[in-house]
Order: sequence, then structure tokens, then C-alpha cells
Amino acid sequence: MDFDECFNMPLGEAMFSLRAIRRFIDKPVSDRDLSSIITAAIQAPNGGNQQLWRFLVIKDKSLIEQLAILYKEAWWAKRKDAGIHGRQDVPKDNLVMKSAMGLADEISSAPVIVIVCSTSKGPKAMGSVIPSVQNMLLAARSLGIGGTITTLHDQVQLRVHHLFGIPDTAQVVYCVPLGYPKGRFGPVSRKSLENVAACDRWDGVPLHAI
Amino acid sequence: MDFDECFNMPLGEAMFSLRAIRRFIDKPVSDRDLSSIITAAIQAPNGGNQQLWRFLVIKDKSLIEQLAILYKEAWWAKRKDAGIHGRQDVPKDNLVMKSAMGLADEISSAPVIVIVCSTSKGPKAMGSVIPSVQNMLLAARSLGIGGTITTLHDQVQLRVHHLFGIPDTAQVVYCVPLGYPKGRFGPVSRKSLENVAACDRWDGVPLHAI
Repeated sequence: MDFDECFNMPLGEAMFSLRAIRRFIDKPVSDRDLSSIITAAIQAPNGGNQQLWRFLVIKDKSLIEQLAILYKEAWWAKRKDAGIHGRQDVPKDNLVMKSAMGLADEISSAPVIVIVCSTSKGPKAMGSVIPSVQNMLLAARSLGIGGTITTLHDQVQLRVHHLFGIPDTAQVVYCVPLGYPKGRFGPVSRKSLENVAACDRWDGVPLHAI
Repeated sequence: MDFDECFNMPLGEAMFSLRAIRRFIDKPVSDRDLSSIITAAIQAPNGGNQQLWRFLVIKDKSLIEQLAILYKEAWWAKRKDAGIHGRQDVPKDNLVMKSAMGLADEISSAPVIVIVCSTSKGPKAMGSVIPSVQNMLLAARSLGIGGTITTLHDQVQLRVHHLFGIPDTAQVVYCVPLGYPKGRFGPVSRKSLENVAACDRWDGVPLHAI
């Protein structure tokens, strides 16, 4: 298979329109596209080429529904940690949080959820797996498929491990719902380059956008 | 600036030829390219759009040389943790480690080193910053510029913070040398898809390559 042709969108277009997609139309993602997307993921750099990643591609509707219940519990457990105890506490102007709350309600509508695991535990293994997820999202984007990176709360980890047969020695890094977007891809909102990049020192001359 | 045109390499070509580049020719990277590359980096997803990243773009030759000394010390400190005490202990057939050892010797030949930081400490902040680094490497690749992800050892962290004025509240996530490659981009060596991806369960039906 020629991956240049499979993912022939210009890199710039993929990177600059990779908005998080949290709502999906009712259309399945083909096995062929899922294989291509995960194949792209595993081209990413990783520590010492140890390839500590394992991708569980969840398409079974009943499993997705069971995971969705745990996901929603986990999402609210994370909010509780941050002092938000219910919908009434979600700031009206926090669009990111409102959108994420929507995903917690509706993640079961995703035709696919990829559970990205590492085969060993700890932050090093987690870090070594994460670049593959960016490849995964870019590859999906180029096929018109959207998704977003989500994490689980410790409160549900054991049950997620049990549901998917994930060994104790491994860890879940991310849950990534994938599907065709309800809504559009598009640019993201970011601080300007000057605010996040500097020359030679932390407080050096800001790097200016071209 | 039109980033579709700036990064017009097909996504597939960028992802599937993103070999780690650890040796560089003596050619500077332009400020324009560095700005474009970091601008691409910050389009990446990040937790709650908190944008905990900060990119220190090191071009000053004297600073690169001082960092190179610390980098070499850190590299060997990591090997020592793994029971490797000197060049004689590096397995001859471990090409990844030999190449990394070469970088530890020669990182000062990189025209640029990007120190990728997070503005707070801990694995969550680290994880939130990492996808941006994959965008950075892909954007660089599309401009013919190579690099590789490297980490530092705790043994040198304080001195690196001091050298670049990095506050105690922040952390170094990665050091990424960038430059025009001595040698070629090309495909990477990976386990097959069947070995790292499964349907619906950890031990589910393997996902097959197309």
C-alpha cells in the first residue's frame, strides 16, 4: 500500500485544521481506514524503538456502551477533583469544558474508540507512546475522520482493565473516540507564538511569527 | 502565511519517512523555518487548551556547547542506570543505542536545539506537551530538517535549568536537536500491525495491515 497516496493531504492542511472532534455522525469507519490509521500511528518516534504501545480498537457496540458509562463517571470524577460537582458548576464561558462535558454524555455515539495502552506502567512508557497518537489523529484527519485525546480517572481504571482484558502490568494512556464529524474540521485557538517560544533562554527574545 | 503551502508535503510521506536524524551537516536553519515549525507545533491538541508548553530555541553556539556537555553526562547517567558503564558495554548489534551514543558525542554539531518545556511539573503536564513535538518533527521533516526526541537525566536537570533560566516551577520535557541531515530520511523499522493492535480486547483478533 502506498501511504503517500493513502494520506495525500498536505501536512500543513492536516496540522492546521486538526480541531478536536467530539460529536460524530452515524457512519462506521472502515477496517481498511482503521488499519491505515494505526499503521501511521506506529511510524512515530518512540523511546529506544521499544514500541511499548498497544492499540485496542473498540468497535463492538455493547463494549462501547459499557466504556461510555465508565468514561462519564471518570469525567465527572476528574471535575470533582477540580471542585466542580455538577453541571451547575461548569463555567458558561468555558467552551472547552462544555464541549468535553458533551463528549462525556455522548461518547457512546462514536463508532470507534481506540484505547491506547502502553505495555508497561509509568510516565516514561506513557511519554513514549504519545507521539503515535498525534500521528493517529493526523492520519484520521486526512481521511476526514475526527477524534480527540481523552484520559481516564484512576477511579475507573480497574474496571476498564477488566472490561478489555488489559493486564495489570500495562496501563491505559488515552481513550480516543474516532468517527466522521458532526460539524467541521477547522483551525484551533492558540496563544501567539511570541507568548510560548523564546530564543536561547526561558526569558529570551520572543520567537516571532512569520 | 499559508501553512498549506509552507508544509505542502503529503502527510503520508512526512509520517512514513520520519526517521530519527542524529547527525547534521553544517548548515543553519533559518529563523523563518524555525518560526513555522514551532507555529505548527502549537496547533497540536493539548489538555483543556491550557497550552502548558514553552519552546526554547537554542541557536547560540556557546550555549549549545555547554548544553552538549550536560547532554553527554546525562546520556551516560541513563546508561549507568541500565547497567552500561562505558563504550565497551554497548552491545554491538544495538544500532539504536550506538546511534544515540553518537548523538551524545556530537549533539553540539546541531545548529539548533529546541528545549521543550512545560510550564508546570509532573507527568500530566509532560503528556499534554508531547503531541506538539510530533507536529514539530513532522513540520521540520517537510522542510527537509531532521531531529530526534531526547530526554535528560535528573542528574543534570538543575544545571540545565540554571543555564537557560528555566524556573523551578517548570520542567524540561525533551531536548530536540534540529538540522539538515547528514544522511537520509527514510522508513523506520517497526513490529507489524498485528503485533501491536487488536480488536475489542487486549488479546482480541489482531488488526491486519491492508
